[in-house]
Amino acid sequence: MHGNTDKSVTVLTGGVGGARYLTGQISVTPPTKITAVVNIADDATLHGLHISPDIDTVIYTLAGMADTERGWGLAGDTWHTINELRTLGVDAWFNLGDRDIGTHLFRTSLLRQGLSLSEVTVRLAKARGLDCNVLPVSNDPVQTKIILASGKEIDFQEYFVRLSHNVAIAGVRFAGIKQARPAPGVLAAINNADLVVIAPSNPVVSIDPILSIPEIFDTLSKRREYTIAISPIISGKALKGPADRMMRELGEDATVTGVASRYRRIAKTLVIDTKDSCLSSAVEKAGMEVIVAPTIMRSTKAAANLVRCVMTASETKNSQTVQARFRPVRNNAQPLPE
Amino acid sequence: MHGNTDKSVTVLTGGVGGARYLTGQISVTPPTKITAVVNIADDATLHGLHISPDIDTVIYTLAGMADTERGWGLAGDTWHTINELRTLGVDAWFNLGDRDIGTHLFRTSLLRQGLSLSEVTVRLAKARGLDCNVLPVSNDPVQTKIILASGKEIDFQEYFVRLSHNVAIAGVRFAGIKQARPAPGVLAAINNADLVVIAPSNPVVSIDPILSIPEIFDTLSKRREYTIAISPIISGKALKGPADRMMRELGEDATVTGVASRYRRIAKTLVIDTKDSCLSSAVEKAGMEVIVAPTIMRSTKAAANLVRCVMTASETKNSQTVQARFRPVRNNAQPLPE
Repeated sequence: MHGNTDKSVTVLTGGVGGARYLTGQISVTPPTKITAVVNIADDATLHGLHISPDIDTVIYTLAGMADTERGWGLAGDTWHTINELRTLGVDAWFNLGDRDIGTHLFRTSLLRQGLSLSEVTVRLAKARGLDCNVLPVSNDPVQTKIILASGKEIDFQEYFVRLSHNVAIAGVRFAGIKQARPAPGVLAAINNADLVVIAPSNPVVSIDPILSIPEIFDTLSKRREYTIAISPIISGKALKGPADRMMRELGEDATVTGVASRYRRIAKTLVIDTKDSCLSSAVEKAGMEVIVAPTIMRSTKAAANLVRCVMTASETKNSQTVQARFRPVRNNAQPLPE
Repeated sequence: MHGNTDKSVTVLTGGVGGARYLTGQISVTPPTKITAVVNIADDATLHGLHISPDIDTVIYTLAGMADTERGWGLAGDTWHTINELRTLGVDAWFNLGDRDIGTHLFRTSLLRQGLSLSEVTVRLAKARGLDCNVLPVSNDPVQTKIILASGKEIDFQEYFVRLSHNVAIAGVRFAGIKQARPAPGVLAAINNADLVVIAPSNPVVSIDPILSIPEIFDTLSKRREYTIAISPIISGKALKGPADRMMRELGEDATVTGVASRYRRIAKTLVIDTKDSCLSSAVEKAGMEVIVAPTIMRSTKAAANLVRCVMTASETKNSQTVQARFRPVRNNAQPLPE
């Protein structure tokens, strides 16, 4: 065992990509030393159920219960309840499995009884056998709103699920963000961690609603030296979801350089995929140090390898471009012309 | 066709027994001429779901979807959601099927959006293909509370389901009953019906919470001539459920005579089972006219026969003891000694 196992790690995360990263983290670091700070701006109330898609994806994935093919919900779930709603004439465009609805009923019922989302999340994580800390970023409502190219504003899940994110956007805003306070434990988790990781989640709608909570941004700014982000963009594309398209439509560079522009104020280092090694210098020019590593996590082993790269890099003080310790990749690329 | 089909009928009902009676009514009378006024004092909020057991039993039964073996819920339902709640550590003593939960989510969600229980019930009945009118007796909350012999007061479903009604009671009260207003259409349905039927439901916890709403009692009192009750007690026992036990524990006569004592002020006639024909005179002494008929409804055909008896009796003016027109039974019994 090397020194990695002593480190406490706080991971800022959305759903699938971050959850996969966490499966790697959990296989490297003792769970009690891991805190996942999870986006809640995708949360929606549908059919009266409080649904927290990112929290559920994180918990289901870490508990080994997630449907990894589908990318959401529980493996082997059934669809009786939602189909009954359809029989009753409900336009149930947001699919929910029967067992998944068990989770939502649990959450909704406890929230109505006055528990906070963090308290409910603690119970859910515990009930699923997890020993790591899963914290919603806030107990206050923050709601991602998508402004379409047409000017119409819609809820995030309408954009993401109902419209299959297959429509041009003109803007994104997070309703309630200015009033949102970090949930108990979030600032401490950022302040006290040996390493803060920004997971390879959608920078626009998974990570930005975390960073945009004023107190969190301020706290992260002071931990820049200890913060490493992983680019979810590889070769100008998101592995999953609309991150690249959204960035382009918002006028950003949908490359690791664009990701660096987003994170440079709060993270010292950006991990980019080996496929993007030619952009290392551009990322450095954008203001971040670079680690080049295989970032595609097809397995827990691959995720664990990525985690080890990140943790090793976090131990290398005053590094410039760090070569990944595992599966090192040379970066011989010239700086891109500007 | 005889004149029965022209009559409008309003049936005051609880769950199973009344629902069965209604299956008979619907096979005799055009559905649009039938109004079911349904008890809501059994309603409960469990796992955040608004559950209306009697309304659901009536609708499911009339739609041919009820699990008649079990006596509640939908035939062929599955149990994934409720089992998941159990996995999460919830003491889910009130069983709910997955498709049944679809109904509860539909109701709960619309109630939260501000629709009344009657409006939701109209939608549910329509979605299940019913043309008869199904009305909750009130849109205001009325909650049956059971006072146990120990003095402890518990919710009805705790008594009925959790404790399997296998515990002695000292009293029953209906929280909220004095403030409860009849739902829109209920008083008109009672006032305008050619025939009002009190279904063979539990007199203590299904029918009494209907009768105890002040305006309903007053309105029913004025329709006494047109009102026929069917005893749910046969040979001193309830066919199903704890009606006989409850009546005894409340110090009442758990026979058709006890039922007559409950209904005589608002119903002119009591239908008693052939097995109880010896009690006809006692019922008359208790203040009601008597019809003796087979009241056990093992099939829709049996229910329809009972309905026809009731409707024929309602056409017989100034009758004393009426012999059922279908399957007549002679009543040669002597009055019981008092």
